[in-house]
Amino acid sequence: MRMMKKIVALGGGTGLSTLLRGLKEYPVKLSAVVAVTDDGGSSGRLRKELGIIPPGDIRNCLVALSKEESLMSKLFQHRFREKGSLSGHSFGNIFLAALSSLSGGFGRGVAEAGNVLFIKGDVIPVTLSDARLKAELVGGRFITGERRISSRAPGEKIKKIFLVGKKVRVYPPAASAVMNADYIVFGPGSLYTSIVTNLLVPGLANALKKSRASKIYVSNIMTQPGETDGYTLSDHVNALRERAGVDFDYILVDRSKLDPEVLARYAVSGAHPVIDDLAAGYSGRAETLGAKFVSASHYARHDSRKLARAIMRVAQGRRRTE
Amino acid sequence: MRMMKKIVALGGGTGLSTLLRGLKEYPVKLSAVVAVTDDGGSSGRLRKELGIIPPGDIRNCLVALSKEESLMSKLFQHRFREKGSLSGHSFGNIFLAALSSLSGGFGRGVAEAGNVLFIKGDVIPVTLSDARLKAELVGGRFITGERRISSRAPGEKIKKIFLVGKKVRVYPPAASAVMNADYIVFGPGSLYTSIVTNLLVPGLANALKKSRASKIYVSNIMTQPGETDGYTLSDHVNALRERAGVDFDYILVDRSKLDPEVLARYAVSGAHPVIDDLAAGYSGRAETLGAKFVSASHYARHDSRKLARAIMRVAQGRRRTE
Repeated sequence: MRMMKKIVALGGGTGLSTLLRGLKEYPVKLSAVVAVTDDGGSSGRLRKELGIIPPGDIRNCLVALSKEESLMSKLFQHRFREKGSLSGHSFGNIFLAALSSLSGGFGRGVAEAGNVLFIKGDVIPVTLSDARLKAELVGGRFITGERRISSRAPGEKIKKIFLVGKKVRVYPPAASAVMNADYIVFGPGSLYTSIVTNLLVPGLANALKKSRASKIYVSNIMTQPGETDGYTLSDHVNALRERAGVDFDYILVDRSKLDPEVLARYAVSGAHPVIDDLAAGYSGRAETLGAKFVSASHYARHDSRKLARAIMRVAQGRRRTE
Repeated sequence: MRMMKKIVALGGGTGLSTLLRGLKEYPVKLSAVVAVTDDGGSSGRLRKELGIIPPGDIRNCLVALSKEESLMSKLFQHRFREKGSLSGHSFGNIFLAALSSLSGGFGRGVAEAGNVLFIKGDVIPVTLSDARLKAELVGGRFITGERRISSRAPGEKIKKIFLVGKKVRVYPPAASAVMNADYIVFGPGSLYTSIVTNLLVPGLANALKKSRASKIYVSNIMTQPGETDGYTLSDHVNALRERAGVDFDYILVDRSKLDPEVLARYAVSGAHPVIDDLAAGYSGRAETLGAKFVSASHYARHDSRKLARAIMRVAQGRRRTE
């Protein structure tokens, strides 16, 4: 019997959840290395009040890897809408906070939550340090905090992005998942606030360099206002290469024909299709694999099954047969 | 094979939890019918904010019937100590609130929580109505709310106690547990705020009258300041007979020799041993069974194992053999 392939998915937000939701259906050993610099909403409040790592993205990954129709999984996604002390809190976040307190730390709390939810795979926070994302804008102004960075005025371009916090370092299980992986998947998801934010954690880039895993980048379908306005595909890839210090082996590019109505709706909020300019703007060694990833919906989003199928084709060495 | 005996434990607070913790070790079909008029602390806040039944006593019963060393059970008892929105909340209460919202009501939420905790038996709120305890004092003053009733000034004797609330009626599963029981155990626990409060729920007293179960009263060891100051054992029993409209078959009385140091400590807060004056003050038909129930601790409290053993002797018809 061959060993199951070890796949690490690195990111945050809905992009990472989508990817995990698809990959969990395959016989692979799956680990999610998850960004923890979120500072808005229920996560932000719990972070401030309880001094815990913001649990929102972690919670979404746990749910994505669980049997989602189970009661526990549904509970995890429950949000209190009523006025009062619980208002706006997600139950899963509160669950993670209690579990972390009881089991002696956020890392163990997340692992225990994985057991409670019977998840397929592991969910690993990239760091247990209280880290914040900070950006230097082209004009010279600095802004701190993920939400403020991704909701700044259009036109305020990011010049440099970094992490601030005391003794921020990679959570060792995250580094070892990366080191032992056969495949590491970056994205889809917010370029800076979900992916780069992981790569900035001291120790992670080094683990990536040492890892012999094949590295797969999944291109975003649309640019993200406030984060990647005007970015082409090579802008995305080069931003990551610069941070990770490593090149990709595969770049998965969407070749769907997007519905003009959907595109018009996105355009209103300043989001546009990411243009594939790899031939002109990218000098690396990655092999480009095009496929149709968009889900049949009113959004220009990846379909978890289509995405997972494409990644599994790579992981099973069948990428050329289709 | 004989059918398992059906035992209903009726009450609230720590007394009920103690009883359940002992009885769960025996091969009986156990149901707890639980008071829901608590209005203090985390329960009181959730009641006010979310409009749910106060979950505190329910939570304690669920934990008492669970495998208490399990992670889930420990989580249920976790209380947030940190400042902020969750401060003072018990995680189990929040869990019950989320589950009730998700499963379409408090009754179902409690049943689902029982499944999640793998409890032995059933925990049933006595009513799903928003009911409050109200007392008329001897001086003519009225006070509303369980906490205010049990923390009023000493000397303010209760003349009459009743429930207020819209369309308060017994939760049908509570009535049917009572009707189908072989044994119903009242107490130990706060006479008015844990036991009488159940009997006041319209429909419950009637179910008790119709039930052919043997009724067991477990005497409190100490009087409770603000609630049963100066009450003898017959005062307790008669207060319940008056409310329930039925007499008891057995009265379990503690015959422990209480530690003078413990008694002195209780006396400081106004609590004194409940004097057994049944011979003089009680005219009913109950059989009195004396045993040593006090746990080896610094408190004059029932030991769950000793208490359960005495009740099982009754339930197995062996009460005269020891």
